[in-house]
Amino acid sequence: MIKPRTTPGVMELLPRDQIAFQRMLDVIRRNYERFGFLPVETPVFELSEVLLTKTGGETERQVYFVQSTGALDEFKDRVRNLRDPNEALAPELALRFDLTVPLARYVAEHEHDLAFPFRRYQIQRVYRGERAQRGRFREFYQCDIDVIGKDALGIRHDAELPAVIHAVFTELGVGPFTIQLNNRKLLRGFFEGLGIADGERQALVLREIDKLDKRGADAVRATLTGADFQLADDVADRIMAFVQVRSTSHADALARLAALGEGNATLAQGVAELREVLELLKAHGVPEKNYAVNFSIARGLDYYTGTVYETTLDEHPQIGSVCSGGRYEDLASHYTKSKLPGVGISIGATRLFWQLREAGILSTAESSVEVMVGLMDESRLADSLDIARRLRAAGINAEVQLEAKKLAKQFQYADRAGIRFVVLYGDDEATRGVVKVKDLRSQEQFEVAREELATALKVELEQQRAMGMR
Amino acid sequence: MIKPRTTPGVMELLPRDQIAFQRMLDVIRRNYERFGFLPVETPVFELSEVLLTKTGGETERQVYFVQSTGALDEFKDRVRNLRDPNEALAPELALRFDLTVPLARYVAEHEHDLAFPFRRYQIQRVYRGERAQRGRFREFYQCDIDVIGKDALGIRHDAELPAVIHAVFTELGVGPFTIQLNNRKLLRGFFEGLGIADGERQALVLREIDKLDKRGADAVRATLTGADFQLADDVADRIMAFVQVRSTSHADALARLAALGEGNATLAQGVAELREVLELLKAHGVPEKNYAVNFSIARGLDYYTGTVYETTLDEHPQIGSVCSGGRYEDLASHYTKSKLPGVGISIGATRLFWQLREAGILSTAESSVEVMVGLMDESRLADSLDIARRLRAAGINAEVQLEAKKLAKQFQYADRAGIRFVVLYGDDEATRGVVKVKDLRSQEQFEVAREELATALKVELEQQRAMGMR
Repeated sequence: MIKPRTTPGVMELLPRDQIAFQRMLDVIRRNYERFGFLPVETPVFELSEVLLTKTGGETERQVYFVQSTGALDEFKDRVRNLRDPNEALAPELALRFDLTVPLARYVAEHEHDLAFPFRRYQIQRVYRGERAQRGRFREFYQCDIDVIGKDALGIRHDAELPAVIHAVFTELGVGPFTIQLNNRKLLRGFFEGLGIADGERQALVLREIDKLDKRGADAVRATLTGADFQLADDVADRIMAFVQVRSTSHADALARLAALGEGNATLAQGVAELREVLELLKAHGVPEKNYAVNFSIARGLDYYTGTVYETTLDEHPQIGSVCSGGRYEDLASHYTKSKLPGVGISIGATRLFWQLREAGILSTAESSVEVMVGLMDESRLADSLDIARRLRAAGINAEVQLEAKKLAKQFQYADRAGIRFVVLYGDDEATRGVVKVKDLRSQEQFEVAREELATALKVELEQQRAMGMR
Repeated sequence: MIKPRTTPGVMELLPRDQIAFQRMLDVIRRNYERFGFLPVETPVFELSEVLLTKTGGETERQVYFVQSTGALDEFKDRVRNLRDPNEALAPELALRFDLTVPLARYVAEHEHDLAFPFRRYQIQRVYRGERAQRGRFREFYQCDIDVIGKDALGIRHDAELPAVIHAVFTELGVGPFTIQLNNRKLLRGFFEGLGIADGERQALVLREIDKLDKRGADAVRATLTGADFQLADDVADRIMAFVQVRSTSHADALARLAALGEGNATLAQGVAELREVLELLKAHGVPEKNYAVNFSIARGLDYYTGTVYETTLDEHPQIGSVCSGGRYEDLASHYTKSKLPGVGISIGATRLFWQLREAGILSTAESSVEVMVGLMDESRLADSLDIARRLRAAGINAEVQLEAKKLAKQFQYADRAGIRFVVLYGDDEATRGVVKVKDLRSQEQFEVAREELATALKVELEQQRAMGMR
């Protein structure tokens, strides 16, 4: 006998939690599609040579390699016959560790079959050999959208992604949230204006600033004026003031941008871009309470070049960013000579779901089964099947009790399973041409003509669905 | 520069094909949910020790092993230090090769948290290191449903699965199809009645019979009377007549069962079970043209013990079975002492999609983007965004042209992308308070008041969706 268990670091759910998770993925997918993004799925494994284009990054140290049984046998032989035991020897396949590298490979491979700007969404699991730790996952869903231009991509696209974020998180119903906006050119220009022109030095300062929330302003300031950075006090003061800017309204955001002054060309361009994004967000109908300028947001230091986004839940700051991304210069320089600038965001759905449950924002869902047709009498089985068939034809998810167990047991089953309606049709009901319906949520009971059942339940369920959308 | 490419044996689709594939998965999922099946997802990798409980099966020789970078380094050291180079040494993790073993592990692991009969659906990819070959996939979707009982599971469940198959394939709109039914007890009893009582010998005969379609009746009969089997002529004749039985109607199916006579207890039980399944199929409202008794169906020889199913497309027999399954005695004997009988079916969606395209039954889908809001004049961008926002709020998938390119180019883009409606709102339309709509499918053009646009398009799109359901 083998103990049935999963490997640590994966999220496996019981059905009712899986239903809640599936609803979250459905909301994300539906909204991605609403905004005109097209579905892409890529294989879980890529050729290692194609996937691991960069070397030494943290993510790549966490990669999972894959080998078929045959390839593994060959691999063992090669390991035994290596002259230098330190010689690098990697299996041919590896699991994707994000959806960006597969997207780059996909766009470069299918470049001539795609229309640009190419707008794709991708909702799949990715794999990272993280150390086992509470809330860290080795397998998790990413839900990404990206817009990829050929040669160029207008700044207007940068305003569309926050509009998608707004639609998704509004429908998810996770309480008030703020989309935090910044621009890497603005950041770069600001530091250049302070005499910190070297890109690497900027990156180091930005890395310190990224620790603001964790270490606090005083500790970060002390580091900046200390031995490592040796910044003058007034420079450190200006940095600290700058990175603590959070706008409180649309007008305030514009005022914060204006207050930065003319500065150098890089700063001016960053300001102009961020201003255009803000104006378009308004045109998109995103309420101003849902976005803010935040000059401390930097994101992936090597990667992003313009607009950057983070999204935080106002009442749960400890969760951190639940949706991040930004603008990048060139998606697929490893695979094609074409210049492919893009802008994208990602929701880490597995971690988000886990965190929302931990924070008590999400609870176990009702069942996806909406109606259980109970069985009072063995002779009524064909009627039960017919009733269920008509419910299904009307778009209602229905399960039939196939054995005439004690009614109390049938109700107990429906209740435990989270099924809302139980329908009963015994001899008495048959004589009167009605069906008995019990709503396990309200504990109310009513009767309805057998041929009216689907219509009656649809009305009740539509009300529920309409409420669920808020 | 690295050549962007995938490993052979995976199916990666361009967006419009991905949309068609996604719709197929959605139809399958929606129908599984309609019948009250609950979603389960399991991790892509399982502990090898848990996954590979049996040894030497073909499927297990095709398994993919998985190792994190760290685990791979350790593995190399262990390979180098092995005393006996033939000693078995397998990585800790392996990719699932079907959804049945993960289901067994899941049910055994979560036994006390599940309500039985446990009805689950699972739509995920599985992995097999097949030899590269046209139409063979190393990564493919399986769409499974199973009903698992505790200690016992009534035969009535066996009739529900063909009702699901009927609903799925009707909505998929792939033309006429037949659910072929048989029962392993009936088969076993029949062979025992011919004096072929040994289980292993039966299995060998059944394996020959499985080749009927490929080799033809004469060749199979010759094998049965030949040196390997040495069956008497009259026994071979009775087998050949038996396995060629295909019922032509519900009444004919019952008559075929009656014609088998009393026989032994095993045969009688198989006949009784199959008869009950047929009667319930009728109660489920499955039309008799969609099912038939076929005594040659045996399926997985070690695994199934009662009802077995295959599903074939009447006009495309070369495709073979598109949905198969059956009844098994005990799901998870490797993991738990509880007896867990079950019945299930599986649709191999990747292969099915590929075959339907090859057979010309499925074509590239229209886009999931239903409306493109064109941009005639830069000054109208905010209007475009507002028009799109209202369409999306009404549940319509809409994309906005963010640059006022030449109109011909915008139309060309929409046409190539498979978007049905283009909406235009320029100065002239603004003056009159209307929006211009072009239907790229019918090539018709009409105008509608700006505030009526969503309602008007919804009517058109609902008609399309209703037609798409057939």
